[in-house]
Amino acid sequence: MTDFKALKDLFHLPEGLVYLDGNSLGPLPRAALSRMQTTMRDEWGEMLITGWNRAGWMDQPARLGDRIGRLIGAEPGHVVLGDTLSIKVYQALAAALALRPDRKVILSDTGNFPTDLYMAEGLIKALDQGHELRVVPPNEVEANITNEVAATLLTEVDYRTGRLHNMAQLTEKAHENGSLAVWDLAHSAGAIPVDLAACKADFAIGCTYKFLNGGPGAPAFIYIAPEHADRVQPALSGWLGHAAPFAFDPHYQPGPGIERMRVGTPPVLAMAALDTALDIWENIDMAAFRAQSIALSQLFIDRIEATCPDLTLASPRDPLRRGSQVSFHFQHGYAAMQACIAEGVIGDFRAPDIMRFGITPLYVDRQDIERAAETVTKVMHRKLWENPEFHTVNRVT
Amino acid sequence: MTDFKALKDLFHLPEGLVYLDGNSLGPLPRAALSRMQTTMRDEWGEMLITGWNRAGWMDQPARLGDRIGRLIGAEPGHVVLGDTLSIKVYQALAAALALRPDRKVILSDTGNFPTDLYMAEGLIKALDQGHELRVVPPNEVEANITNEVAATLLTEVDYRTGRLHNMAQLTEKAHENGSLAVWDLAHSAGAIPVDLAACKADFAIGCTYKFLNGGPGAPAFIYIAPEHADRVQPALSGWLGHAAPFAFDPHYQPGPGIERMRVGTPPVLAMAALDTALDIWENIDMAAFRAQSIALSQLFIDRIEATCPDLTLASPRDPLRRGSQVSFHFQHGYAAMQACIAEGVIGDFRAPDIMRFGITPLYVDRQDIERAAETVTKVMHRKLWENPEFHTVNRVT
Repeated sequence: MTDFKALKDLFHLPEGLVYLDGNSLGPLPRAALSRMQTTMRDEWGEMLITGWNRAGWMDQPARLGDRIGRLIGAEPGHVVLGDTLSIKVYQALAAALALRPDRKVILSDTGNFPTDLYMAEGLIKALDQGHELRVVPPNEVEANITNEVAATLLTEVDYRTGRLHNMAQLTEKAHENGSLAVWDLAHSAGAIPVDLAACKADFAIGCTYKFLNGGPGAPAFIYIAPEHADRVQPALSGWLGHAAPFAFDPHYQPGPGIERMRVGTPPVLAMAALDTALDIWENIDMAAFRAQSIALSQLFIDRIEATCPDLTLASPRDPLRRGSQVSFHFQHGYAAMQACIAEGVIGDFRAPDIMRFGITPLYVDRQDIERAAETVTKVMHRKLWENPEFHTVNRVT
Repeated sequence: MTDFKALKDLFHLPEGLVYLDGNSLGPLPRAALSRMQTTMRDEWGEMLITGWNRAGWMDQPARLGDRIGRLIGAEPGHVVLGDTLSIKVYQALAAALALRPDRKVILSDTGNFPTDLYMAEGLIKALDQGHELRVVPPNEVEANITNEVAATLLTEVDYRTGRLHNMAQLTEKAHENGSLAVWDLAHSAGAIPVDLAACKADFAIGCTYKFLNGGPGAPAFIYIAPEHADRVQPALSGWLGHAAPFAFDPHYQPGPGIERMRVGTPPVLAMAALDTALDIWENIDMAAFRAQSIALSQLFIDRIEATCPDLTLASPRDPLRRGSQVSFHFQHGYAAMQACIAEGVIGDFRAPDIMRFGITPLYVDRQDIERAAETVTKVMHRKLWENPEFHTVNRVT
């Protein structure tokens, strides 16, 4: 049985704070501090260049990829780490388009995170081959997967509302129409059970600084289904994706399978922190984890709906159609969230009017949910959001 | 006057080791250890998501870009940090090609680092617009800069031999022929004086884990000349290069100038280490630094040539035509370098037969050079490289 109390103790959490923004940046795993010192002093400091072999730095992108792969149902050896999610979107999409040269449509939805759409736009413009990015509302995706569509690019969990796409069903529809399914797991990995292999996803990508707690700017990951892995042509054909990086051949030859999705020198320090964060997942029962996430989310919805009539649920009410967050519409959501933060409850705001609360059983418990609901209620009842200082727009990611 | 002894004390260097591989991975700046703890515990740990504003994480890519900019003669506000050098090559090259739509030739040379050539190959294949990568010997570059050439993509310092291109002269020739000059400063930044603005370079890119000592996998940088900065269309159009990243617009609008070369979420932990490494450069007189680098290199060449007749100088003899490294040809160079490493002198090997020694006055002094020369001499005279264990090919970067 998963001991949630023990899990919470693995994180450094500021005194007196309720943190419901792990869907933007997960908190610091306590053990990452000493791990980083070891990596810096004993590996970088003492091994210097020999650390690439002796400390296993060169193999980290594949090793950590496999650790993440276990959380998302990937076949072993088919996930690799590196770069940022934006770059991984570009790689996956470029590869998918090259596998469907006769088709010109990329299908996505308005619930996708903007960088996915931006990267698609940039790729289309750079290619200059007449591709079209077709963006439809989330509930119209299925009907729009036609035999024109080269790639269906979707984020499983909507970053604003938490609305969950049906990965298995949409992937099946994509395949029936000869389209490739590219899934962004930014808000899925470490949040909900994912089974890429069972869903027959073609590509998947994700970041590691949200529910996986890898740290600010931690590297991204990419998955390619076994049937495609040796066939894709990397657009970003960097030396560490080469079949023999240290032969220094003048011409690029892709490495085996997912290895070809590596590009440049891997971020060793960031990977050390992430590796420690991934230790936490080793003994978690994902079914129990998901059940607890749903229970906490339901508790939060119940409390808020009972006391805050001005907040309207933006997330699906059905927990099976929702990721691991709860969002509400409120006209003055930005200021209201600033007021909550000032009161020690951190969630975040997404334009135009979404107050977003990430809920993960890793370090959020019932008391936190009760306290968060009380704080939101106080902010709403006392109209604390009317304070002018909360209307100065600031930036959060 | 630059106090080289004091500089050396700023680095953690293993006891009894002479490290001549800072052109592959620079050593650990001592202060980076505590800086990283602060960033992890007091920023990530305590500020959590608010660190993006409160700790200035979001501005780090531009702030550190300017710090590097001062070392390479860039105009303020025209360098930004992020991703890897391979990605930055792709961005610069894609931008350059888009600025010269009527030309189809990318000119480079056999002295370029393979990943630059690989990224160009990948870009050409992805674009599928009939571009050609024309690779000539380094001494034939100038003659091949014709009015067919869209972009001249060169690494200033050859990673094997240390041969230095004349950046001013080749850039001028490029401009006379309507070509754009893209300079890779991987072995220049922190190694030799560079003056991008005076040379009128169009684009420059580089890494920070070599002579800048940012740590294994530290982020790369990119420079765009002011005249182009607001005109280039990013191929990798990520959300943090958007004019208003947190407006979550459905369409990409490039940010001002170099900001548009940002792609995804910046690597905060890696930037913390790099920031500390850059502190070291604040009071260095680059003319004195270069003079000392040349003096140490000359000493090493003199010693080796006096005692190791089987080693042939691979680097230019003229110090003004050489970066901050000295290389020798030797048929059994791989094994000989392994033997040197076993004897406590770390340099590295580059195929097919180059023994490479990075020499930087930051932490290499005359005693180190004497000791290194003695060790190489011992390895050669006693034929220590004949030891079979030194013939097992290993990987170093």
